[in-house]
Amino acid sequence: MARCRELAAMSEMPSGTLRTYLSPAMKRCYEIVGQWMESAGMRVSVDPAGNLRGILPGAEPGKRVFILGSHLDTVRDAGAFDGILGVVMAIAIVENYRRKNLPFDIEVIGFAEEEGVRFGMPFIGSKALVGLLDEQMLFRTDAHGITVAQAIRDFGLDPEAIAGAALKTTPLGFLEFHIEQGPVLEAEGEPVGVVETIAGQSRASLKFIGSANHAGTTPMHLRHDALAGAAMWIATVERLAPLNPGMVATVGKIDAYPNVANVIPGEVTVSLDVRHANDEVRKIACQDLRLGATMIAKDRGLKVEWANLLDQKAVWLDEPLIQRLQAASPRTLRRMVSGAGHDAMILAPHIPSAMLFLRSPGGVSHHPAESVKPKDADLALKIGYRFIESMSAEYK
Amino acid sequence: MARCRELAAMSEMPSGTLRTYLSPAMKRCYEIVGQWMESAGMRVSVDPAGNLRGILPGAEPGKRVFILGSHLDTVRDAGAFDGILGVVMAIAIVENYRRKNLPFDIEVIGFAEEEGVRFGMPFIGSKALVGLLDEQMLFRTDAHGITVAQAIRDFGLDPEAIAGAALKTTPLGFLEFHIEQGPVLEAEGEPVGVVETIAGQSRASLKFIGSANHAGTTPMHLRHDALAGAAMWIATVERLAPLNPGMVATVGKIDAYPNVANVIPGEVTVSLDVRHANDEVRKIACQDLRLGATMIAKDRGLKVEWANLLDQKAVWLDEPLIQRLQAASPRTLRRMVSGAGHDAMILAPHIPSAMLFLRSPGGVSHHPAESVKPKDADLALKIGYRFIESMSAEYK
Repeated sequence: MARCRELAAMSEMPSGTLRTYLSPAMKRCYEIVGQWMESAGMRVSVDPAGNLRGILPGAEPGKRVFILGSHLDTVRDAGAFDGILGVVMAIAIVENYRRKNLPFDIEVIGFAEEEGVRFGMPFIGSKALVGLLDEQMLFRTDAHGITVAQAIRDFGLDPEAIAGAALKTTPLGFLEFHIEQGPVLEAEGEPVGVVETIAGQSRASLKFIGSANHAGTTPMHLRHDALAGAAMWIATVERLAPLNPGMVATVGKIDAYPNVANVIPGEVTVSLDVRHANDEVRKIACQDLRLGATMIAKDRGLKVEWANLLDQKAVWLDEPLIQRLQAASPRTLRRMVSGAGHDAMILAPHIPSAMLFLRSPGGVSHHPAESVKPKDADLALKIGYRFIESMSAEYK
Repeated sequence: MARCRELAAMSEMPSGTLRTYLSPAMKRCYEIVGQWMESAGMRVSVDPAGNLRGILPGAEPGKRVFILGSHLDTVRDAGAFDGILGVVMAIAIVENYRRKNLPFDIEVIGFAEEEGVRFGMPFIGSKALVGLLDEQMLFRTDAHGITVAQAIRDFGLDPEAIAGAALKTTPLGFLEFHIEQGPVLEAEGEPVGVVETIAGQSRASLKFIGSANHAGTTPMHLRHDALAGAAMWIATVERLAPLNPGMVATVGKIDAYPNVANVIPGEVTVSLDVRHANDEVRKIACQDLRLGATMIAKDRGLKVEWANLLDQKAVWLDEPLIQRLQAASPRTLRRMVSGAGHDAMILAPHIPSAMLFLRSPGGVSHHPAESVKPKDADLALKIGYRFIESMSAEYK
């Protein structure tokens, strides 16, 4: 807990935590985390994508490796635990096994970029690890016009070598500890849970188009009120989601035009975010919501434009690793769907991957009030130790 | 029609019409309109509030006066007819009676300010005429920090004399021609209508307060979504209004926070605008909508804050003048409620007042496409002539 708080002070903001990809604050963070890794017996390096990597050699160095880790970057005005906790816990596990001559190496990775704050593209670190970065991505720019390539150079690395960040061999697996970032474990009185699936996600933008008109002189029956139509559709979204257990559907953004108290709204744009573990269920829900929007618009003499922005498939984590985590746990683990994306989502199609969630008090994350109960962290660490023990017994 | 178009070219904007209170564009407008007044036989002056006033003396000058007019200022990117038409038609009526030695004077007033664009306060011109301006109002500032008092001075007038803009004696009456600014006459195939009441108006602002949370990780049943609550209330507004015939109720403005696609909205602020000819009906509707908001909030674990911003009573125009307009008309006049405020609304409690509405093609106003049918203007003018004739017969 103290280490997470210590890293939270390394920030680009005068007060509050912000640590973006390859920033000076990230450099200071790497120095400290790198020292912790070395003290735990690891050889430390930074790969060409900027990921901080420490290796604890096992009995036969370089033969097999198991990866632990999470990300070291943060959102703006972040808490101390999102991402960071998974790196700090990984180091704590290595400390426990440093003199044990495991039958495999343990690699701890502090991913350089997961949140997507600096370049508007998330998962740069984990994508580099599985060779998913294309060259176009190197020319993306941040708010100051600095390209990814230049940022890599400024950090003392070589962007031309970025392919070298990719793994040469397939590891035995990947385990990520992460705060839940939601209220489910707390609501059910569970300290930890195991992630079964990372939900697929649809994003769309809808524009309802009516007629802006004088709010005083246009009778109700002669109106084409884009906001009244959008409001009815928002209610539909909220009604439909619970019909599909486990689904979340959200209208987070709304913009009306002209957005003046005495003018009937002529245009309203709303966002849609739908997530579910089953891609087919999610697809059907989106089709239904689209049909609903069309019908509402037709009834009211509105037009509606629908733009699909994202269709991200659900990712199933590795069942043998999930069962191994369960076997390592003193209590039955709540199996969960993660509604948020994580580095494990990027790695899972390439590396057997697992995630252990720690309860988020108040369901709070991406906020300075984000926290973790020390008792929950103790339990998660215990499960981690026994998980590595069980892996060790298998590969001995 | 040509005169209205000519005035539309006098603008503060390089393209499009904008003519605010005491602006240079207004000065040019006054020169031209003043010339038209003089050509029609009127003595022209500008009062200390900036109203352009022309008097056609009758048989016994100064004994009795009947007022015709409307306003000469405009909204941003305005049409050519809102306000202006009522001044131009008044001058046309005077032209018809200039050599007739009427038993009363006719005063044509081009009100200096009705829309409230420059100082954020409407009706400066008509309020000055009935002595409703207080001194505080002189210290209001425009976007450049210029006070009303300074603007009056810059126009060559004396702000200390502003009380002198008020009428010394009660006129026989006031008649205003104005475009409807709504779709009712067009929908019913009527060229003109007579205003019976100017609707009372309530304005309020509501803030729904829930919990901003991660759209991916917060299950539907653990949400306190401020936008979902606001949407349900917007639907209530739209459902309630038609239960009260003649009522209009509008949510024109909506602002969500943080207004991001993947975050459940934590706060949503919406506007409410309710208008009706009957103040009691309007008050009860507002109470019902407030109760509805409270109940929706309670059901959903939200808080709601309600702020009343305006409670403007309905104004009844003068029934004898309405009947005189009807008698002057070759066809039965549609009796109407005006949902918009007008100079006649300010004058009516002090001076017997009437309004004749001209059909607005497409219901369009406050827009460059605003128009008037020449045939409708002809008919309105005919009614105006016969109205003055009938007044003349009565006071001879």
